Amino acid sequence: MQSKLKMPLTGIIPPLVTPLLDNDTLDVEGLERLVEHTIAGGVHGVFILGTTGEFASLSYKLRRELIRKTCGLVNGRVPVLVGITDSAFAESVNLAAFAADCGADAVVLAPPFYFATAQPELLEYLEKLVLQLPLPLFLYNMPIHTKVIISPETVYTAAQIPGIIGLKDSSSNLVYLKQVQHLMREKKDFAFFVGPEEFMAEFVLTGGHGGVNGGANLYPKLYVDLYNAAVKKDFIEINKLQQKVMQISASIYNVGHYGSSYLKGLKCALSLCGICSDFMAEPFHRFKSPERRIIEEALNGIEF
Amino acid sequence: MQSKLKMPLTGIIPPLVTPLLDNDTLDVEGLERLVEHTIAGGVHGVFILGTTGEFASLSYKLRRELIRKTCGLVNGRVPVLVGITDSAFAESVNLAAFAADCGADAVVLAPPFYFATAQPELLEYLEKLVLQLPLPLFLYNMPIHTKVIISPETVYTAAQIPGIIGLKDSSSNLVYLKQVQHLMREKKDFAFFVGPEEFMAEFVLTGGHGGVNGGANLYPKLYVDLYNAAVKKDFIEINKLQQKVMQISASIYNVGHYGSSYLKGLKCALSLCGICSDFMAEPFHRFKSPERRIIEEALNGIEF
Amino acid sequence: MQSKLKMPLTGIIPPLVTPLLDNDTLDVEGLERLVEHTIAGGVHGVFILGTTGEFASLSYKLRRELIRKTCGLVNGRVPVLVGITDSAFAESVNLAAFAADCGADAVVLAPPFYFATAQPELLEYLEKLVLQLPLPLFLYNMPIHTKVIISPETVYTAAQIPGIIGLKDSSSNLVYLKQVQHLMREKKDFAFFVGPEEFMAEFVLTGGHGGVNGGANLYPKLYVDLYNAAVKKDFIEINKLQQKVMQISASIYNVGHYGSSYLKGLKCALSLCGICSDFMAEPFHRFKSPERRIIEEALNGIEF
Amino acid sequence: MQSKLKMPLTGIIPPLVTPLLDNDTLDVEGLERLVEHTIAGGVHGVFILGTTGEFASLSYKLRRELIRKTCGLVNGRVPVLVGITDSAFAESVNLAAFAADCGADAVVLAPPFYFATAQPELLEYLEKLVLQLPLPLFLYNMPIHTKVIISPETVYTAAQIPGIIGLKDSSSNLVYLKQVQHLMREKKDFAFFVGPEEFMAEFVLTGGHGGVNGGANLYPKLYVDLYNAAVKKDFIEINKLQQKVMQISASIYNVGHYGSSYLKGLKCALSLCGICSDFMAEPFHRFKSPERRIIEEALNGIEF
Repeated sequence: MQSKLKMPLTGIIPPLVTPLLDNDTLDVEGLERLVEHTIAGGVHGVFILGTTGEFASLSYKLRRELIRKTCGLVNGRVPVLVGITDSAFAESVNLAAFAADCGADAVVLAPPFYFATAQPELLEYLEKLVLQLPLPLFLYNMPIHTKVIISPETVYTAAQIPGIIGLKDSSSNLVYLKQVQHLMREKKDFAFFVGPEEFMAEFVLTGGHGGVNGGANLYPKLYVDLYNAAVKKDFIEINKLQQKVMQISASIYNVGHYGSSYLKGLKCALSLCGICSDFMAEPFHRFKSPERRIIEEALNGIEF
Repeated sequence: MQSKLKMPLTGIIPPLVTPLLDNDTLDVEGLERLVEHTIAGGVHGVFILGTTGEFASLSYKLRRELIRKTCGLVNGRVPVLVGITDSAFAESVNLAAFAADCGADAVVLAPPFYFATAQPELLEYLEKLVLQLPLPLFLYNMPIHTKVIISPETVYTAAQIPGIIGLKDSSSNLVYLKQVQHLMREKKDFAFFVGPEEFMAEFVLTGGHGGVNGGANLYPKLYVDLYNAAVKKDFIEINKLQQKVMQISASIYNVGHYGSSYLKGLKCALSLCGICSDFMAEPFHRFKSPERRIIEEALNGIEF
Repeated sequence: MQSKLKMPLTGIIPPLVTPLLDNDTLDVEGLERLVEHTIAGGVHGVFILGTTGEFASLSYKLRRELIRKTCGLVNGRVPVLVGITDSAFAESVNLAAFAADCGADAVVLAPPFYFATAQPELLEYLEKLVLQLPLPLFLYNMPIHTKVIISPETVYTAAQIPGIIGLKDSSSNLVYLKQVQHLMREKKDFAFFVGPEEFMAEFVLTGGHGGVNGGANLYPKLYVDLYNAAVKKDFIEINKLQQKVMQISASIYNVGHYGSSYLKGLKCALSLCGICSDFMAEPFHRFKSPERRIIEEALNGIEF
Repeated sequence: MQSKLKMPLTGIIPPLVTPLLDNDTLDVEGLERLVEHTIAGGVHGVFILGTTGEFASLSYKLRRELIRKTCGLVNGRVPVLVGITDSAFAESVNLAAFAADCGADAVVLAPPFYFATAQPELLEYLEKLVLQLPLPLFLYNMPIHTKVIISPETVYTAAQIPGIIGLKDSSSNLVYLKQVQHLMREKKDFAFFVGPEEFMAEFVLTGGHGGVNGGANLYPKLYVDLYNAAVKKDFIEINKLQQKVMQISASIYNVGHYGSSYLKGLKCALSLCGICSDFMAEPFHRFKSPERRIIEEALNGIEF
């Protein structure tokens, strides 16, 4: 297929949270405010149905509604990337077709996450899948949830397949990042993004294309400014903004006991800022009053 | 709800493979032969859409067709258990409702498998889910795929919820098995099954209720006979039959390089025996000729 | 070498705790009481410098003193097995030579535990090591601490090397146990023991040779009686004694928050029974008063 | 104690390989050449008995000889750091005392690596240990081998203890690095080094103090030049040198099948360059001819 996207894609592409009223009902007004808030902040695209979007916890009906609504709200102002990760090949294909019909610009896919694949199985899976996708594909390395690392060699081989245009890495593994960058050094149009916002600036400084950073739901301009400072190698500005990013990470994402602290804290903060509901799809549950007060204080402590 | 099931359920309940013609097409004739073959072998129930049934790789359309067809083919001769494990709460509920409409007897559920839950989150999830299920529920402990252990304490607490009637454990962890048995010792109607067939007999000897053993797709009578021998504590018979079970495990499930050897070997053997197609849903692929020949020789080496 | 040991060894062989007065001083009187207590309880051997003996936390000076003292105290009444697990090959060899000089009967070794070995590396390591050992060797599978599983195939191959006479498994993995039993079925003089006491009886019922059970430090006769009941397939007696074993497991080993609960609880109980000090070598620390009171109540709740 | 070291330490400190003639004999001439080679390359210190030095595989006799010889050879030209990591507290203390007597400048310690400690246990262990050390201490985060992460909060608390002067991280986890940097931002004299050389430059660019990079055994000047370029934020030079570092990583460290490829490749290359023997202590074994030829070609392909 012919991609409408700039190649490679660059910049800040927030993985949008999915605003919910209950377990199977979209918070449509919240979604509208979220889309306007992030676009106003200067983001270079939006990514729905990622991990931050709780894709795996949402029914297909709701996933489809979210795709349709988001594409409509964005209305071509920035590219829309749609997560199609699924344990079932056929459902990934179905979702990609729907996303294309709604006008999305690309799809994003992590490996199947029930059965763990070996690398040759994963590559064969990707080769077959791409043939059935009507949109260009970003690979999504997320081993903590999928149990599978998309190895640097698999990224390299997959990137030769027409239609595979980039990688988002959420492994936080620096050796992995460097190995992928080294292997892909000749393929200039292959986009490489990182998820964890704590090192987006560092990554961009040394050749990365951008960040898919959850905090950009909340403070889109901060992450866009930091990205721009990194592109310009403006270390004074980087240091100033990086402090705020680390403060967010150390406070808002760090309340509560479980692995879900990041997601709960982010949705709670968005709710406190009046952007959208903090309802979370099962198996997670929004923060109750005590945690909510801690998040509120954390928000007050971040100066802009 | 009122269960039609004997409480506790006992015996051999094969986790049926899902016969496929291609990635999204059921091998209906293969399914019919498989159902007849296992019922003729004396199994005490069948379980569809488990790990052996590749549930996670199947589209919802195909899962529904499989439920409807299986319930029709079995036609009340033995209980039908239906896997409703899903990363999305709403889809588990949808599938359970469909299963009830088709006449299934119980549903089986492992924890959500993208986001790993902490035990309190898992318990809250189960409490909410059970309220929306029209059929009794078996818990399914499968940590290698879900990344979550249903702790003995969570099993104990969940078992107090009306509607949760049993546990299938596939962790192979003997301390876990013993801890659950000890905690549940007063709750005589709670069924406790194991997945791995290598120790089904041992488990039944010491109080377990039965096995959800993949090999019973192929040799249902062998596993039923072994179960009966264990119930009777007939050690001579146990030793004789256990040798065959170990021979199957060491040969048919042990070809090829990856974690998927068991599934591929089982489907290949069923195909060689003329029961059903060996097609596997993505991300797995059936054995090619060299491995197929090894499985053929293994089958010839098992004497009955 | 020619082993003085019965082949295969059978029965209950407690992995003795190491009684300590401080981080580098043996509680010699406690050791004497512990040795007499366990031998009086009918144990079939003792094993020092295992995981329960905190071997890895002890200086070499103290390990040597413990070996010498224990061999002297036991004085040939039962076999003495000595742990020689070490990350350094040369130190394992040194310790084995010392143990032989002191009159020990066998040595026990888990894989090197800093660098994780692949199976061919492990096998080569074992082949070289055995040539330098003056005593017969038990393999010790303890993957949670060593990060390495001694695979069933490696056990099988290693068992062909003269001088390797048995395996103690602490993986709790039932499929592993059954696979090893199946592979070793023709080698009748190879001893196979399990660590976790929760399934010792079940293991012996189905062909296992015995248990290296920590609880036998405290209640040696209980475990010996349970072993004997399992040998006789006396299910009434097994069920009665197994309840006590599970009660110990669920209470004494289950206080406190970390993975070290078992060790801390066991040493605390031994101290409360007047057998030896509960001092623990760094990096662990004995229970303080609140936990000690819980253990005391647990001890009072176990009826004999 | 009063440290003779510059605070914070900065620069390139190679983790020296341990040249061996056989499993328990030092290659003294190789060690001399290695020390002279690295100092001639401009390194800012040397670190012996780290993971690259195979510390865990060496007898205590050999560890002591290595400490004594290295301190003598270096003779005060650069600081000597000595690894004292051990599963036994008493042996770490013994080794630190010996290192101080030989004139070493600091010691380096990873958590005990048989028993995994929880963070409060680890902190208590460190607090007790530091009191008995005659030299300042670097913490060493190496979770792949020790199974324990020294959490950012534990680093922060430990760094308040007089005598703990730095951290070497080998986790490769970028979020971890950023969290530690953020927590330690006010403690300017606390040194923070990374192990994996693939991102040393990036780390130094954004505030890190240096690298403990294995490749600096082989090409000390390359890593020193890259460090200096990073300090000067000379991106043209960084990019040029980083290519060579990645080429080394992708070729020399990437031969063979197991986790030990890095160590085997590095020692093989040092042997090919005539610096020292490639003998490896058990449980590892040096490369044989085919792998050696691949390393030779890789060396020839690196242009300087």
